[in-house]
Amino acid sequence: MGSVMRLEHIGIAVKSIEEHLMIWRDVFGFRVEMIREIPEQKVKVAMLDAGTLTIELLEPLTTDSTIQKFIERRGEGLHHLSFEVDDIEKKIEEFKNQNLKMIDEVPRKGAHASKIAFIHPSSVGSVLIELSQKDKK
Amino acid sequence: MGSVMRLEHIGIAVKSIEEHLMIWRDVFGFRVEMIREIPEQKVKVAMLDAGTLTIELLEPLTTDSTIQKFIERRGEGLHHLSFEVDDIEKKIEEFKNQNLKMIDEVPRKGAHASKIAFIHPSSVGSVLIELSQKDKK
Repeated sequence: MGSVMRLEHIGIAVKSIEEHLMIWRDVFGFRVEMIREIPEQKVKVAMLDAGTLTIELLEPLTTDSTIQKFIERRGEGLHHLSFEVDDIEKKIEEFKNQNLKMIDEVPRKGAHASKIAFIHPSSVGSVLIELSQKDKK
Repeated sequence: MGSVMRLEHIGIAVKSIEEHLMIWRDVFGFRVEMIREIPEQKVKVAMLDAGTLTIELLEPLTTDSTIQKFIERRGEGLHHLSFEVDDIEKKIEEFKNQNLKMIDEVPRKGAHASKIAFIHPSSVGSVLIELSQKDKK
C-alpha cells in the first residue's frame, strides 16, 4: 500500500474571502491562520484552523484563474481535498501504475513551500485530490 | 462564540460505492469502518478511516433520493462537511440569530444514532454543512 495519506486541508472556492470570513471566522468561530495572495497561482488564500484540519478559502485573482473557471462552471463550493504524503514522487508512480490519471506527473511548488501534485478528478469520482509533501527540515 | 465545531467527516456522492472502494480503499489504502444501507434516508453509506477524520461515500438507493438528485444536478463529487457540536439545539438557535438559513430548524435522527441538522448551502457559499451531536453516554 505504500506510505500513509493524511488529510491535511479542504479547499473551498469562493468569490470573496472577505465575505466568507463573516461565516467561517465570525459565525463558526474558526481562527484565521493566514491570508495572502499567491500571484503565480492567481489566487488569494485564507487558511482557517478547523481543529482536526485546515479549511482553505480560495478566491480568484484574475479572470483566467483556475478557481475563477471552477466557479463559472460549478459555482462556489467544495473544491479539493489535500492529502499529505511522505514521498510524493513515489506516490505518483504508485498511482500511475494503478491507472490513475495525474494532472501533475512531476510535482510542482505549492503555496505552502511544499511539493504538490493533483490527481485528475476523472480518476476519483469527480473529486479533485491534491497530494502534498512538506519540505524536509 | 459558543461551543466548538469539530470537523468529523466529509461526504462524497457516488453512483456506486463498490466502484469507488477500488480507489479509496484499494489504491489510497483507507480502512473501511462500516458499509450499510439506510433505507429511511434512501442511501447506502461506506465510512472510511482517513486518519484525521472519516470519508463517507454516499450512494443513492432510489431515484428520489436527495443524493441521486445531487448527482443528476452536479455530478458525483464532494457533497457535504459534517461538524460535531456539543449542543445542537443551541447551535441552531445561535446560527438562526446570525441569519443563517437552516434546512432543519429542529434536529432529526442521523445515520449514526446522533442528532443532525443541515445548514442551507445558500448561507455558506454553496457548501452543504451538517451539524451532528453524538448520543449522551
